[in-house]
Amino acid sequence: MRIAIDAMGGDHAPKSSVEGALAAAREWSDANIILVGRKQDLEPLMINAPSNLSIHHAEEVIDAEDEPVKAVRRKKDASMVVAGRMVREGEADAMISAGNTGALMTTGLLVVGRMEGIERPALAPMIPTLDGRGVLALDLGANMDAKPEHLAQYGLMGSIYRQKVHGIAKPRVGLLNVGTEAKKGNELTKAAYPLLEEMPIEFVGNVEARDVLTGACDVLVCDGFAGNILLKTLEGTAGAMFSLLKQEFTKSLKNKLAAAVLMPSMRGLKQTLDYKEHGGAPLLGLSGLVVKGHGSSDGEAIKNAVRQARVAVQSRLTESLSEEISGKRVAE
Amino acid sequence: MRIAIDAMGGDHAPKSSVEGALAAAREWSDANIILVGRKQDLEPLMINAPSNLSIHHAEEVIDAEDEPVKAVRRKKDASMVVAGRMVREGEADAMISAGNTGALMTTGLLVVGRMEGIERPALAPMIPTLDGRGVLALDLGANMDAKPEHLAQYGLMGSIYRQKVHGIAKPRVGLLNVGTEAKKGNELTKAAYPLLEEMPIEFVGNVEARDVLTGACDVLVCDGFAGNILLKTLEGTAGAMFSLLKQEFTKSLKNKLAAAVLMPSMRGLKQTLDYKEHGGAPLLGLSGLVVKGHGSSDGEAIKNAVRQARVAVQSRLTESLSEEISGKRVAE
Repeated sequence: MRIAIDAMGGDHAPKSSVEGALAAAREWSDANIILVGRKQDLEPLMINAPSNLSIHHAEEVIDAEDEPVKAVRRKKDASMVVAGRMVREGEADAMISAGNTGALMTTGLLVVGRMEGIERPALAPMIPTLDGRGVLALDLGANMDAKPEHLAQYGLMGSIYRQKVHGIAKPRVGLLNVGTEAKKGNELTKAAYPLLEEMPIEFVGNVEARDVLTGACDVLVCDGFAGNILLKTLEGTAGAMFSLLKQEFTKSLKNKLAAAVLMPSMRGLKQTLDYKEHGGAPLLGLSGLVVKGHGSSDGEAIKNAVRQARVAVQSRLTESLSEEISGKRVAE
Repeated sequence: MRIAIDAMGGDHAPKSSVEGALAAAREWSDANIILVGRKQDLEPLMINAPSNLSIHHAEEVIDAEDEPVKAVRRKKDASMVVAGRMVREGEADAMISAGNTGALMTTGLLVVGRMEGIERPALAPMIPTLDGRGVLALDLGANMDAKPEHLAQYGLMGSIYRQKVHGIAKPRVGLLNVGTEAKKGNELTKAAYPLLEEMPIEFVGNVEARDVLTGACDVLVCDGFAGNILLKTLEGTAGAMFSLLKQEFTKSLKNKLAAAVLMPSMRGLKQTLDYKEHGGAPLLGLSGLVVKGHGSSDGEAIKNAVRQARVAVQSRLTESLSEEISGKRVAE
């Protein structure tokens, strides 16, 4: 299999991309890793590269500040766009990028292309849960408004992803809502509920925001707006609590000594709640596999994204999604 | 002034209501406190009641399990409904209830009645912030879907409330959104943004969920669905973190000893983040003042709700809201 990495995307690129690619190529000899980017920047970093690691030159770069649609349309030779084109044309089985999120969503839509039957591809990161299993939440992408049918498709795609990539036999799919009763919610969730019930998934009904962290479901379905509020509140609350605790714990020598004893526990909790620890986020509903790494990805994170992409390709994720979606459409 | 208390509403009623009413009547001699409820249940609890505390008998009770609209329509002699009727008919200047939230919203709409010019009354609790000031968030009531015009009115009502009741000269009003730029958001927030700009308020633009806790604004405008996700995620994250820390901190004797030193700090943080500490939530946009106490209110919380209602009545909150809203309508 061939996995293309947008070598120029991310805060620590291209160093992080090359490090991750080197480690991945060494660990998985069945994978051909292709670094897409400026040859002149990448080559000096590739020391002792194994034979399954190569460079595909692309001259341009899309920056974090670039306006997504414009950048993807105009920079036809940007590393991200070239990697997307390789997926579309079958030169790569998957692509990974830690670059500009909006531009990657646009590359997915305009370059890789939508899967037939899917109206809205969805970005599906893992949100941390206290048991460490995490929940796949979608959509957390650029689609702020969703229709009930989109939410139903998110549920189906998320379920298949967790089966194929995480090996969960019957992923529990929940709908983010304001109460657990079926009739609760806004117009969108009330209309989506019966559609999710009809899907060939383990739909566990509505899930309240406070129960997401305790692992009430394996897949959380939401529109991009509500998902963003959930994720940012979680981040904000955890971050604020840690900084307040830190402040309290360094107030006196007595507190400092006590806090030192508890530091390993605190650090463990911080890690549990850090969603960046949970690997790349697939962009589901495209005709090929696209994995988004966090902007701050280091080499380890890039390697983990390769691991994820590799399992997805091995398990024929895109093909399964396509069969399920088209089967569903025929059945309608 | 006369303040009616639905004496039968809340998990700890009528004990909590009577305790709160007794304490309030003793502290504020300018307020006539009227306990509305079953005389036979209330009288035995009223020991050494001052002369400014009285009972208004109401035979029926609305339970937490009652279906709101049905209950308000059928139980015409329920304590909550009777208190609402007293406000509408000018027999009370304000009412307080810690009972069934849906039923209280319905009582507000059907019994007390909407303020002219307001389409959707909004429930406005305080969400805790780390600096202890808190942010008034609205709507966090039964209106799951909102129109842009509703959000604009929420901003105006919230701003006047914080001026009048909390004495903030220029309350900063923020719109809950997924990014700070004006063009960010879903269809609702994008349409509400320019309407909020036109309001006679200190509109500070979009506020991200992660910045709410750090006090980015004094009034947070949102629809009921997004507000619920925010509040429940905050509660859930804080609760889960405390329980995880507790678990870690009691793992070994060494940890237990260290944790004991830090316990006062932890307790302080827990209190800061507990939104039940922040008093009752006004139901804004009605033709009279209605304050909702938390379901788990104790006597102290009921007394605090009376304090809040008293300040609101003294500062002529309802009249100011009405003038501002009708002025706004004339200007249009």
